[in-house]
Amino acid sequence: MNTGELVELGQQLRVDSVRASAAAGSGHPTSSMSAADLMAVLLANHLRYDFQRPAHPGNDRFVLSKGHASPLLYSAYKAAGAIGDEELLTFRKLGSRLEGHPTPQRLPWVETATGSLGQGLPVGVGIALSGKRLDHADYRVWVLCGDSEMAEGSVWEAAEHAGHERLDNLTLIVDVNRLGQRGPTRHGHDLDAYARRFRAFDWHTIEIDGHDVDAVDRAYGEALSTRGQPTAIIARTLKGKGVQAVEDREGQHGKPVPDADEAIAELGGPRDLTVRVHEPPSARALHSAGSGQLELPRYEIGDELATRNAFGEALAALGTARGDVVALDGEVGDSTRAEFFAKKHPERYFECYIAEQQMVAAAVGMAARGWVPYATTFAAFLTRAYDFVRMAAISGSGLNLVGSHSGVAIGQDGPSQMGLEDLAMMRAVHGSTVLCPCDANQTARLVAEMAGLEGIRYLRTSRGESKVIYGPDEEFPVGGSKVLRSSDRDRLTVVAAGDTVHEALAAADALAGEDIAVRVIDLYSVKPVDRDTLRRAAEETGCLLSVEDHREEGGIGDAVLDAFTDGRPVPRLVRLAVRTMPGSASPEEQLRAAGIDADSIAAAGRLLVGEAVVA
Amino acid sequence: MNTGELVELGQQLRVDSVRASAAAGSGHPTSSMSAADLMAVLLANHLRYDFQRPAHPGNDRFVLSKGHASPLLYSAYKAAGAIGDEELLTFRKLGSRLEGHPTPQRLPWVETATGSLGQGLPVGVGIALSGKRLDHADYRVWVLCGDSEMAEGSVWEAAEHAGHERLDNLTLIVDVNRLGQRGPTRHGHDLDAYARRFRAFDWHTIEIDGHDVDAVDRAYGEALSTRGQPTAIIARTLKGKGVQAVEDREGQHGKPVPDADEAIAELGGPRDLTVRVHEPPSARALHSAGSGQLELPRYEIGDELATRNAFGEALAALGTARGDVVALDGEVGDSTRAEFFAKKHPERYFECYIAEQQMVAAAVGMAARGWVPYATTFAAFLTRAYDFVRMAAISGSGLNLVGSHSGVAIGQDGPSQMGLEDLAMMRAVHGSTVLCPCDANQTARLVAEMAGLEGIRYLRTSRGESKVIYGPDEEFPVGGSKVLRSSDRDRLTVVAAGDTVHEALAAADALAGEDIAVRVIDLYSVKPVDRDTLRRAAEETGCLLSVEDHREEGGIGDAVLDAFTDGRPVPRLVRLAVRTMPGSASPEEQLRAAGIDADSIAAAGRLLVGEAVVA
Repeated sequence: MNTGELVELGQQLRVDSVRASAAAGSGHPTSSMSAADLMAVLLANHLRYDFQRPAHPGNDRFVLSKGHASPLLYSAYKAAGAIGDEELLTFRKLGSRLEGHPTPQRLPWVETATGSLGQGLPVGVGIALSGKRLDHADYRVWVLCGDSEMAEGSVWEAAEHAGHERLDNLTLIVDVNRLGQRGPTRHGHDLDAYARRFRAFDWHTIEIDGHDVDAVDRAYGEALSTRGQPTAIIARTLKGKGVQAVEDREGQHGKPVPDADEAIAELGGPRDLTVRVHEPPSARALHSAGSGQLELPRYEIGDELATRNAFGEALAALGTARGDVVALDGEVGDSTRAEFFAKKHPERYFECYIAEQQMVAAAVGMAARGWVPYATTFAAFLTRAYDFVRMAAISGSGLNLVGSHSGVAIGQDGPSQMGLEDLAMMRAVHGSTVLCPCDANQTARLVAEMAGLEGIRYLRTSRGESKVIYGPDEEFPVGGSKVLRSSDRDRLTVVAAGDTVHEALAAADALAGEDIAVRVIDLYSVKPVDRDTLRRAAEETGCLLSVEDHREEGGIGDAVLDAFTDGRPVPRLVRLAVRTMPGSASPEEQLRAAGIDADSIAAAGRLLVGEAVVA
Repeated sequence: MNTGELVELGQQLRVDSVRASAAAGSGHPTSSMSAADLMAVLLANHLRYDFQRPAHPGNDRFVLSKGHASPLLYSAYKAAGAIGDEELLTFRKLGSRLEGHPTPQRLPWVETATGSLGQGLPVGVGIALSGKRLDHADYRVWVLCGDSEMAEGSVWEAAEHAGHERLDNLTLIVDVNRLGQRGPTRHGHDLDAYARRFRAFDWHTIEIDGHDVDAVDRAYGEALSTRGQPTAIIARTLKGKGVQAVEDREGQHGKPVPDADEAIAELGGPRDLTVRVHEPPSARALHSAGSGQLELPRYEIGDELATRNAFGEALAALGTARGDVVALDGEVGDSTRAEFFAKKHPERYFECYIAEQQMVAAAVGMAARGWVPYATTFAAFLTRAYDFVRMAAISGSGLNLVGSHSGVAIGQDGPSQMGLEDLAMMRAVHGSTVLCPCDANQTARLVAEMAGLEGIRYLRTSRGESKVIYGPDEEFPVGGSKVLRSSDRDRLTVVAAGDTVHEALAAADALAGEDIAVRVIDLYSVKPVDRDTLRRAAEETGCLLSVEDHREEGGIGDAVLDAFTDGRPVPRLVRLAVRTMPGSASPEEQLRAAGIDADSIAAAGRLLVGEAVVA
């Protein structure tokens, strides 16, 4: 398009943003209007995208990081002919695909859910990295950010990642409209404040007037021709541009313009321009180069091995069988054992350094391109990325997260390194799967199993060695459990997962010596949970005792209780969990201090069956 | 100390780090050795600190952000005479104050728990901000970081915050030893990579050889004399410096040196230097300028008001009564209503922009200086700061966190803005208090109440208006609940909190019209939970139905179940919670779609008491 047409298209996007928000009675038209010219030029002259074929491997990828500017995005979809005007006006209504913030669950052209600020660039970096290092495709990634979100550290994790990886297929457009939700941003219209930061992170930068369509057009051209560096276009804009009543004014965030008709008239009235978006170049589809033959590691019963080791070995094997499996780690691959994968499949391994938000975001970006990512760090440090996990669930992203060094059982390093809230955090994520294996063969099976699931899959591994108790051919369906001790004389059921399974077995053996029969359930699938087995055990033994190396809230104890919320009477329930703040001590001392070791379980068992001996 | 003495002191710190780690059989001596000279010069020539009086208001504040280098910290304590050699050798043992990573819970000289990397600088910024804007004291804040942790976005949120606030009382020392846990860092020994980033964030920077004690001494002096900017000293060091077997070598992270005796000999053997640390200048203690008279807002029963508004008004009133209350917000103060406090007490209000990690970290820093912070953002976005909340609990920090816009009830904005995992996340934090008020008077009371509690206190507020159902003089003890409907004919108990209380009341009224008597409990204190009332209700009515605007895991349903894990038989339990992924819709449509509105509760109630009518 030429200058005049671009100006007109920008105005059309503004008018449609105003109309959509007015019809909804809510929304963010002013945040849309500041970026309308930036969007118009991109859509008309630079984006290569087939709206009929959103999965086309050659399509450019556009991420609206400032997701609240969704009216602009939907207006652009309309201009491109992807949606009609009638649908545009369903914005924010029940059942509409056009949500307040865009999600790929509902709209095929959206790469990732946004709306939590500071996530679009991190995910965009993941997509660009896929393009460079996995897809080997020429698509370009365009990310449109607001200026407010530049305060998020995740943006700088992403900037660091992209700069270091020299992602010249990535262009960031920063819509510097000077006004955040509640007032002026930290840097106002000081474009250089942003530009010098990006330059310091090894980006190419261009500062422009974001309402000068020719300047915008030139900047995009410059970005496209820049080699060896990602480009950040820092664009000076006005919030609410084009409508006097709101332009560059405070207090106009997140609401329809006061008088839509007047605003539309001031913008020159509705237009009906249609953009012929450039076709993507032909490109080959994703290529999976795996052997197709999964040869998981096999461990002998009785061997001693940390579940993190089994994870690493299984992931490496999975990577051999499946060419679509990739791994990312937060600079602790020697601890999580992701390095086993790295050694075997270096081309599909991504060192994310100590930047857990960026690690998860990059995984989301890769998943959006059809890869199957495993992202690993200490279970404790996944808390850093909780907002990204939450948003990944909103995206419907298929993500494998693996947290090592769970629980007090790590020992001397102390509470900062102990994952004690991870199960609670992951269980609360919509549609998640939470797995907590106790031995090497079980771990290996679950590592392979989780690859085929939907949504967020979490696997918890342990630092210390534990005995292999299952044979290598045993199967562990997600949603199942294993009954490890059982008789018709059982007076109590102990439910455990991970490290505490071994403590539970030792306790059961001790109690058996006192003629107290105890059932033991290995609840390796924490979510979904095996309701039937738990219900049966409770009814047959009368009492359930859960034991977990986790805080008492939200973990295995709560998962057990989940089986009993169907309105039928519930048997007796008791839980052992970590109730104190641990210090440094050996693993054995930690388990004892937390009251989740075999002796503590046995003591609780005696009490519950009424055979405690008072000394 | 002069050059020769400083060199000797550095060697002593190395020797003692090696000795402590050898005695423990674990630990991070090599990470300590790289920073030994940096620490020696600081301790001997620049730090002003009275180890006998860690609470002295004039004391400088030192934060070891690379908390794993605790052997160095404890060796410095020994050199300063704060601990003896015998205690040094208890490092990492059960019961020792000298944990793997330092915590203020156990050691009075530690400002904040570290060990999750990228947290020391953010908290240090909070302390420095206290010094400048709250304490008006001359203490200096020194933060020692590793180079690996520069990858964390939180470091750049902190850099942005400190640069913008011109914190010239803050000095950051970056120990660039080139090696992370698993291998080389992203930037290796490229000091300028760090320096130019900090300069872009408006810091003064100095690049030095971190083993040249004179250069280190000069750099500290330059930092002290720099006005209007924080200073970052980028120091080139060698990991394991001084011991050939480990110096600058990979694979030597987080373990004792291979031969401690040999290493100690190579370092010139043990020394017994004692440092006379500079006295702090005399300083006045914290001054509380409150009226002492708390005049909370009072609302009329029947009024309609959002709990977030009551929060804002109560916080402003609390700020008038108590001079030690401060507020921080993540650029959504107009939504959280923290702006009500800002208008009344601008000098104690901190705009943190969209940087939730830094907001919580700054609050931790202020709490460390004796202030009582309230940090606010959308409940959903507190997930961004989960690792900081977790670490704050390890610090024993007294923190009030307030999350607005909870649940699907926010309506059109959609799932990215809905706090649906917040209760699970906060309940799992050790020692936390979780409050969920349903009306304005209850909110106001709880806002005041939480100020006096220990640990992490979380208050959940709602976006939409709700009816005032309690009088302004009603009291709401933490750990209590309110029985809102009750008779001796009750056949069911509905347990709700926040918005769903009003739905529960409407459902109970509807069922009452069908001659089904229902008890209603307002569980405003989600943690600790009112076990006695729940147990009594369950026994008297036979069935509990919990209803929450939250995911079904870890929230109110699990809190209810918590009351029944004492080994006594449990009545029937059923829960209603948000089980789907919401889109955009009106608040009423959202509650209905999630199955947590009055009609859904009534329908579930009929089913549970066996009076459902099949249409």
